[in-house]
Amino acid sequence: MTSNEILFLIGAGVFAITGVLAAARQDMDVMSFIVMGLVTAIGGGTLRDVMLGVQPFWLQQPAYLYVTSAAAVATFFFERRFRATYKALLYLDALATAVFTIVATERTLHLGFEPGIAVLMGVITGIGGGVLRDLLAGQPTILLRRELSMTPIIIGGALYVVVRHNVGLPPLYVSLLAIIVITGVRCGAIRWGWAFPDWLTYRPAK
Amino acid sequence: MTSNEILFLIGAGVFAITGVLAAARQDMDVMSFIVMGLVTAIGGGTLRDVMLGVQPFWLQQPAYLYVTSAAAVATFFFERRFRATYKALLYLDALATAVFTIVATERTLHLGFEPGIAVLMGVITGIGGGVLRDLLAGQPTILLRRELSMTPIIIGGALYVVVRHNVGLPPLYVSLLAIIVITGVRCGAIRWGWAFPDWLTYRPAK
Amino acid sequence: MTSNEILFLIGAGVFAITGVLAAARQDMDVMSFIVMGLVTAIGGGTLRDVMLGVQPFWLQQPAYLYVTSAAAVATFFFERRFRATYKALLYLDALATAVFTIVATERTLHLGFEPGIAVLMGVITGIGGGVLRDLLAGQPTILLRRELSMTPIIIGGALYVVVRHNVGLPPLYVSLLAIIVITGVRCGAIRWGWAFPDWLTYRPAK
Repeated sequence: MTSNEILFLIGAGVFAITGVLAAARQDMDVMSFIVMGLVTAIGGGTLRDVMLGVQPFWLQQPAYLYVTSAAAVATFFFERRFRATYKALLYLDALATAVFTIVATERTLHLGFEPGIAVLMGVITGIGGGVLRDLLAGQPTILLRRELSMTPIIIGGALYVVVRHNVGLPPLYVSLLAIIVITGVRCGAIRWGWAFPDWLTYRPAK
Repeated sequence: MTSNEILFLIGAGVFAITGVLAAARQDMDVMSFIVMGLVTAIGGGTLRDVMLGVQPFWLQQPAYLYVTSAAAVATFFFERRFRATYKALLYLDALATAVFTIVATERTLHLGFEPGIAVLMGVITGIGGGVLRDLLAGQPTILLRRELSMTPIIIGGALYVVVRHNVGLPPLYVSLLAIIVITGVRCGAIRWGWAFPDWLTYRPAK
Repeated sequence: MTSNEILFLIGAGVFAITGVLAAARQDMDVMSFIVMGLVTAIGGGTLRDVMLGVQPFWLQQPAYLYVTSAAAVATFFFERRFRATYKALLYLDALATAVFTIVATERTLHLGFEPGIAVLMGVITGIGGGVLRDLLAGQPTILLRRELSMTPIIIGGALYVVVRHNVGLPPLYVSLLAIIVITGVRCGAIRWGWAFPDWLTYRPAK
């Protein structure tokens, strides 16, 4: 296993933990925790791979199942301690989301698709799992919440494809730049509740 | 771009507008409008293509993303005007649904599948996007509403496969006939609230 | 049609009936019954096949559509009689779930995937349709209910892959053993409300 693969597995574990903490409800059993963790961690990437017509990334790497299941079980038993570090975990989650998003955008471009498709695949990778989890848990999806979640990904993804195509920077630098931007905007949304201003928010006429 | 492709894009734009108008809720931001428009417009066709094992139709035509996103943003800013023409837009939506449905049915037959599968793929194309949007927006899906929505598609799709296989009409005429039937029944449902009679509607015994 | 195929179709019909009985709500029309039956019966297998990158099993066997639609329509018209045998139908449903699950697990192994993936595919096959139906019907999914439903499948699937790899039993015996275990645990959950003990059930700290 390469060090990249290990980092990805750690990221998936973080998604499972934050996903379970967000979805946990009275009377849910440990098995539902595992499903919530699994869906949050690998749901977005699965949607992306199915749409692109490639094999879901975890089919040849069952380690994703075991790591996310273990993270969900650990969260079940040590929930109070994990909950105490929730804010810190959310920042870590923002960083991991940024990495997975940009890797997805990069791979989609590499498969020969247009920049707009690549950005969309980044968005699906980054938020698809959380949306699926909310549906399964009967929670309102992020589409109904004001806090920025898709927007940082779109900003970072668009920046990536624009800089990549027009500026002579080494690819690694472009990726790092986009990851920093996504993480930064998302952390701002977590820390200060950044949201769209009122004129970009729907208020039905009375 | 052929004139057919332009018509399809216009149809997708109409779906995005009616989809957004149906899903818009207090506090939704402009980004959620874009997602609702996109999901309504391309969700059904995506489900169909994934099931048939072909590449989602918009992956090689990112124009679908841009047109539906633009339609959703326009609906956000000029919502009151769009809302004033909602009924007219719904009739246009019925026509566009009919066209996309019959094109899907025809293509599924062309891929060598049986008529029943072709009709089902028409239904998934025609209503899948709206169902996905309702799930994401936390609204009851059309399966829980009485107004006819799937039924016009099934009637028109069944008519198409039966006439196509048994009557010596030119293919274009068969398509036009089915499109007129679907549009007509759906418009009747919008205009006069056509629904199944009581004996075909579930009333739990007390 | 082989006798196996006929048994599978009967199983699909049972899923459609129990699915419709679980989802039926005031004002649902007969068409919604058909969709609920269809989604319950073939939804899980469809999810599995799409993830594995193989053609959904019913695309070449439209008999699945007709049998499950007919079962849903029959349930609509004779609901009271079907409802009177609901408990018996649930036991039959448990048996059919067990068979479909183990067949899915076996096929996934046969395609060359690892045991953990094979067990997961069994779970998706066994509960995916019911979860999709609950989402469409606006009901809480089984992830929010305490009664065991995934757990019997995981126990039976894990037993299957362990015994298959480590014990010299003929394959048919291993399948039968796993099917008996899944059916037994699930029937216990139906009959006596088996659920995880309190220490494996989430109680938020006050």
